[in-house]
Amino acid sequence: MSKPSISVLARFVAATAGRNMTRAAYVAMTAGVVTMVLLTVNPAYEAAHRWVDGVLWVCLAYFVFEWVVRLRHMAGQQRLPLYLLSSSGIVDAIGALAIPLALVVGVEPRTAWLLSVLWVLKVVPGIPGLRQLRRVLVLESGPLLSVLVIFLMVVLLASVAEYFLEHDVQPQTFGSVPSALWWAVVTLTTTGYGDVVPVTPLGRLIAGLVMISGLGVFGLWTGILATGFAAETRRDNFLKTWETVSNVPFFAALGPAAIADVTHMLRTMDLPARTMIIRKGQQGDCMYFIASGEVAVDLPGKQVQLGEGAFFGEMALLGNNVRGANVTTTKVSRLLVLDLVDFRVLMARHPDLAETIDAEAKRRALENK
Amino acid sequence: MSKPSISVLARFVAATAGRNMTRAAYVAMTAGVVTMVLLTVNPAYEAAHRWVDGVLWVCLAYFVFEWVVRLRHMAGQQRLPLYLLSSSGIVDAIGALAIPLALVVGVEPRTAWLLSVLWVLKVVPGIPGLRQLRRVLVLESGPLLSVLVIFLMVVLLASVAEYFLEHDVQPQTFGSVPSALWWAVVTLTTTGYGDVVPVTPLGRLIAGLVMISGLGVFGLWTGILATGFAAETRRDNFLKTWETVSNVPFFAALGPAAIADVTHMLRTMDLPARTMIIRKGQQGDCMYFIASGEVAVDLPGKQVQLGEGAFFGEMALLGNNVRGANVTTTKVSRLLVLDLVDFRVLMARHPDLAETIDAEAKRRALENK
Amino acid sequence: MSKPSISVLARFVAATAGRNMTRAAYVAMTAGVVTMVLLTVNPAYEAAHRWVDGVLWVCLAYFVFEWVVRLRHMAGQQRLPLYLLSSSGIVDAIGALAIPLALVVGVEPRTAWLLSVLWVLKVVPGIPGLRQLRRVLVLESGPLLSVLVIFLMVVLLASVAEYFLEHDVQPQTFGSVPSALWWAVVTLTTTGYGDVVPVTPLGRLIAGLVMISGLGVFGLWTGILATGFAAETRRDNFLKTWETVSNVPFFAALGPAAIADVTHMLRTMDLPARTMIIRKGQQGDCMYFIASGEVAVDLPGKQVQLGEGAFFGEMALLGNNVRGANVTTTKVSRLLVLDLVDFRVLMARHPDLAETIDAEAKRRALENK
Amino acid sequence: MSKPSISVLARFVAATAGRNMTRAAYVAMTAGVVTMVLLTVNPAYEAAHRWVDGVLWVCLAYFVFEWVVRLRHMAGQQRLPLYLLSSSGIVDAIGALAIPLALVVGVEPRTAWLLSVLWVLKVVPGIPGLRQLRRVLVLESGPLLSVLVIFLMVVLLASVAEYFLEHDVQPQTFGSVPSALWWAVVTLTTTGYGDVVPVTPLGRLIAGLVMISGLGVFGLWTGILATGFAAETRRDNFLKTWETVSNVPFFAALGPAAIADVTHMLRTMDLPARTMIIRKGQQGDCMYFIASGEVAVDLPGKQVQLGEGAFFGEMALLGNNVRGANVTTTKVSRLLVLDLVDFRVLMARHPDLAETIDAEAKRRALENK
Repeated sequence: MSKPSISVLARFVAATAGRNMTRAAYVAMTAGVVTMVLLTVNPAYEAAHRWVDGVLWVCLAYFVFEWVVRLRHMAGQQRLPLYLLSSSGIVDAIGALAIPLALVVGVEPRTAWLLSVLWVLKVVPGIPGLRQLRRVLVLESGPLLSVLVIFLMVVLLASVAEYFLEHDVQPQTFGSVPSALWWAVVTLTTTGYGDVVPVTPLGRLIAGLVMISGLGVFGLWTGILATGFAAETRRDNFLKTWETVSNVPFFAALGPAAIADVTHMLRTMDLPARTMIIRKGQQGDCMYFIASGEVAVDLPGKQVQLGEGAFFGEMALLGNNVRGANVTTTKVSRLLVLDLVDFRVLMARHPDLAETIDAEAKRRALENK
Repeated sequence: MSKPSISVLARFVAATAGRNMTRAAYVAMTAGVVTMVLLTVNPAYEAAHRWVDGVLWVCLAYFVFEWVVRLRHMAGQQRLPLYLLSSSGIVDAIGALAIPLALVVGVEPRTAWLLSVLWVLKVVPGIPGLRQLRRVLVLESGPLLSVLVIFLMVVLLASVAEYFLEHDVQPQTFGSVPSALWWAVVTLTTTGYGDVVPVTPLGRLIAGLVMISGLGVFGLWTGILATGFAAETRRDNFLKTWETVSNVPFFAALGPAAIADVTHMLRTMDLPARTMIIRKGQQGDCMYFIASGEVAVDLPGKQVQLGEGAFFGEMALLGNNVRGANVTTTKVSRLLVLDLVDFRVLMARHPDLAETIDAEAKRRALENK
Repeated sequence: MSKPSISVLARFVAATAGRNMTRAAYVAMTAGVVTMVLLTVNPAYEAAHRWVDGVLWVCLAYFVFEWVVRLRHMAGQQRLPLYLLSSSGIVDAIGALAIPLALVVGVEPRTAWLLSVLWVLKVVPGIPGLRQLRRVLVLESGPLLSVLVIFLMVVLLASVAEYFLEHDVQPQTFGSVPSALWWAVVTLTTTGYGDVVPVTPLGRLIAGLVMISGLGVFGLWTGILATGFAAETRRDNFLKTWETVSNVPFFAALGPAAIADVTHMLRTMDLPARTMIIRKGQQGDCMYFIASGEVAVDLPGKQVQLGEGAFFGEMALLGNNVRGANVTTTKVSRLLVLDLVDFRVLMARHPDLAETIDAEAKRRALENK
Repeated sequence: MSKPSISVLARFVAATAGRNMTRAAYVAMTAGVVTMVLLTVNPAYEAAHRWVDGVLWVCLAYFVFEWVVRLRHMAGQQRLPLYLLSSSGIVDAIGALAIPLALVVGVEPRTAWLLSVLWVLKVVPGIPGLRQLRRVLVLESGPLLSVLVIFLMVVLLASVAEYFLEHDVQPQTFGSVPSALWWAVVTLTTTGYGDVVPVTPLGRLIAGLVMISGLGVFGLWTGILATGFAAETRRDNFLKTWETVSNVPFFAALGPAAIADVTHMLRTMDLPARTMIIRKGQQGDCMYFIASGEVAVDLPGKQVQLGEGAFFGEMALLGNNVRGANVTTTKVSRLLVLDLVDFRVLMARHPDLAETIDAEAKRRALENK
């Protein structure tokens, strides 16, 4: 690979440092993991071990390269320590170093390559909404932990009880508390492999109780997560929307109280260019405000451009709810969606907004006569 | 089958184009699928293969016929492309073409007929509340996807780990990562067939963690769906009701704010004719407004008809909560149900409504003296 | 058994007609079912078949007797048809007739007696909160049904696919679609017996998808029920409380709006006589209003009786939150519980209430000086 | 161990009476349980039975000692009966007496020591949020019980049906109703060991229904718990916060209504000393009020101390949302966290607060110029 081309790649990779994965990384990861899987399928491996090894080496090379470039890039910006401690920094390091280290330590190659499964960790920093999940887990950690503690206690008590009841009857499966623990976990999670099963009446009674508490633990767990999640969703949506709302002139007039009110009703939507938002003839049950970007409305004969702060789709909410024209984004746009439900509540609470929209709607109706 | 009768059937089928399934289609589908199942039960098939084949051919014929008619019908209305791309258009096409194609391609008949299971897809466009489910899945897709990604990562990491730990001990089951993957999915979904089970202590430890994360994934999933669903239900109910409320003269007087308020409290209910809504002597905890249709109240001696905009059952909410008369629909009717709970809140907020209802109640009480 | 004593029992049983189960019925049911179970355990039966048969006959006799008495009682009150169609009427009939009929028809006795398991159905009409569950299932039936339809479609499609993929490899387990259906249900519900397991790679891939959709179906199901249940609980609580609140003079002063408001905050609690409500020295985080009944407060030296409309426990919400005295019910009482949380909100919204309570609190403080 | 050192330990233990576990107790518990587990692993036990026994005796000694000390301590404070009946008092007693009693009664030692698993119960009183879980279970007990009753009825009916259908075909597994009951529980909880599986077509049909109702029961259970949990969380959070809010001078000005309002928005957070709350350069989406304790703000050049009643982090909510300085606790502190979301709603509702914060923010901005 010639010097310039490398530096080009380098610059490209550097740009993505700390950000989510690059396409190249996705390709390398997928290829790498798939090949690693093949590696473990003997026939496949015998047939094509040269290829398999080749691909793996190339992927590894890429990840090492990526890591080095990012290190240099960050070092250049005095953000090296920050990067090294960031989640993406850590997974980059693991992806680049795990296998070489294993090989150096002298692990048998085919085993060492198994570590390439760690490359999937590179996806983590980029998972959408992971932050949200983490927040829920953190906020609800108290109750979740207590459920976990209860879970472990049930497991421990049940397994000792079963050991006591069963180990004479089936010494090979319930021969020690550890094996009983295995049974307890398999049972309480309602997995039920069936490799270890109590046979004594009393043992089965206890097993039944364990299964039922399994449902209970489960229910609590879900209940807690559901609760936390509901709260988190509201919060997230609000934050994302507030910024945008306050930038839409249409709402600027409103006082902060009303804005808080409006924000609770709107939903932000980010769209690429050339996306059809409204299809003529469809049922319409929401209107849109343009926070940024631009859309084109195909009216009979002419095409109208609507820019930031404009709104459209209101016709559907005023009387005739069949869309009258196609609307498409012309640039990357952020829209605020107002559902019919909330539209009505909003109009009811803020008559001034209602008038503005009505007036505009009438104007357009006339225009398109 | 004579020409006219065909055209009759054709007209009938055409009318249903794009709409949900016709009764005929339901019959054909059920018969077809059941017979296809018999087809695979050797004794049954040997006993009656003539019949089996016969029924299948008839069903197929019907679906082809239905499809052709609809195509002509749509073509007649210049809605052909729309129909072809609509979900119902696609399932119609599949239902009509899949088997013939398979037979043409030269698939062994008994295998080809298995495709008649695809006829069940014809139910999809008509599933009640499917739209609602889809909306939830779309709106919550972000978090749901991240849970899915986490799910897959756990599966992958766990299976490689188990492969590494178990493949020497039980080469036939954990002999390759793919087989380990099978184990991981079976375990993480807490299905637990027990055909593949780790035996090494470390392997079991990891398996235990996988099961527990299984519960976690599960909980998150449910939590997300529950949240989305709650929001969606509110929204749907509101939309369905708003239309109706604004058409009830009784509420017309109210301003939009109050209507939004009322709408949150009412629930729409569609009833066929000759359905008993209130049974004399029952406990009553809601009143009804007639949005459309008509009901008959059986009073001692006479029978009173109530038409659109009228309300009944209010007695139960004012003092004596035992129903005083039978009320039955005389036509297909849409009613608005107001629960006792909300009745009280509503009356508290809108004294004028309270008066109207009281007055009417008194009038009736006198009348029936 | 002497004539009078029978008529006594008869009168007693009659009194309970249509109501929940009598103690006697509970005893008969438990005894009957337990004995029926023993009946099926050969050694136990051989050992004591005389007893077993005896007990069963006695239980049956009781249920027949109960049924006859209730029939006469209801006939006496012209409510016979109503009773026969009521759920409790039906289960009474089943409990009384099923076994005799079976024996008459000539079913082998030991098999006929198995029907005594139907006696457990007598519990149904009395299950607390069953009405609530039913309401949820009814209100949410739409979405629940569509989930069920999806469930069945997945099962059908998956089983045909598996049959196609597996029936050559394992003809004994996947030999026909019905057996494949069995597999599909066992898998989609994540039960996973492991008696039927796909072995082909493709078959396992599909199985994996089925399991994952299993989680999805599950999640939807729970989400829907959770949503419906939340709504139902609010509603129930409100209804139960409203009646009571409006009967407490303390709140009578408030207008309907405020009552609706208060009702949302209170929780009703029914207590038997001689129950300790507050234990001295405990942490207190709620106050109580007496809707009906009477309580006794143990003050140093004397004991004070509080009757309907009085309130207590307010001290804990005003400053010192350690209970200052034991409070016990002297009669069966219905109390309204106001949580600290809501107490504060309520006091904030209705200063007049706040004053009344403060005044009373001060008065008592002085008194007990 | 010398007399004084004992009394030292005694004083230390006494101090913790009734409170959660001491570190020492945690160590003893963990050591004890782990050793008990080893006890059941024959090879491990043969290798080191002296050690195993030794450790167990020491742990037991500790728990007995702890219990005695606490008894004396409580007796000294006239709170002995209270302690004996408290949950922690009961688990202390069990932990101290169970094993000795077993040994006295003459149970074989290795079996008696299994009782040391009961030591884990000592964790119960200290589980965070257990109180909360209990409250949910109590408040929702009605519906939960009815679900349980339904669960049991399904189990009973299903098992009798399966016994009837299967006991001729597979007498060894479905030979009696008890064994069928075992099958039913294993199936309804979707555990599915696979040790007992129906084979007759009808038997499998019923099994399928049981599995599906399993999902239903599950869903109801979770739905109920989720509902109860959501309510409980709100309540808890409110209580915890209210105390603190009313002690923050900044809010003291507000009337009770506003405080109730504010309380709904704030979240309390307890931090140890020397914890970094805000890291310079981070994204900020909340501000903090100091309820108690003290924090240090690292400004360029100087370091500012903020004490009780002060607030910080507001800059991030006014315009620039990147943290401008590190903030660290200098003492154990309780903070009130106000999320961006609520900050805005709050400011909108209470302009006076907005002004105070703005003014302070400006002052600081100038100062740090």
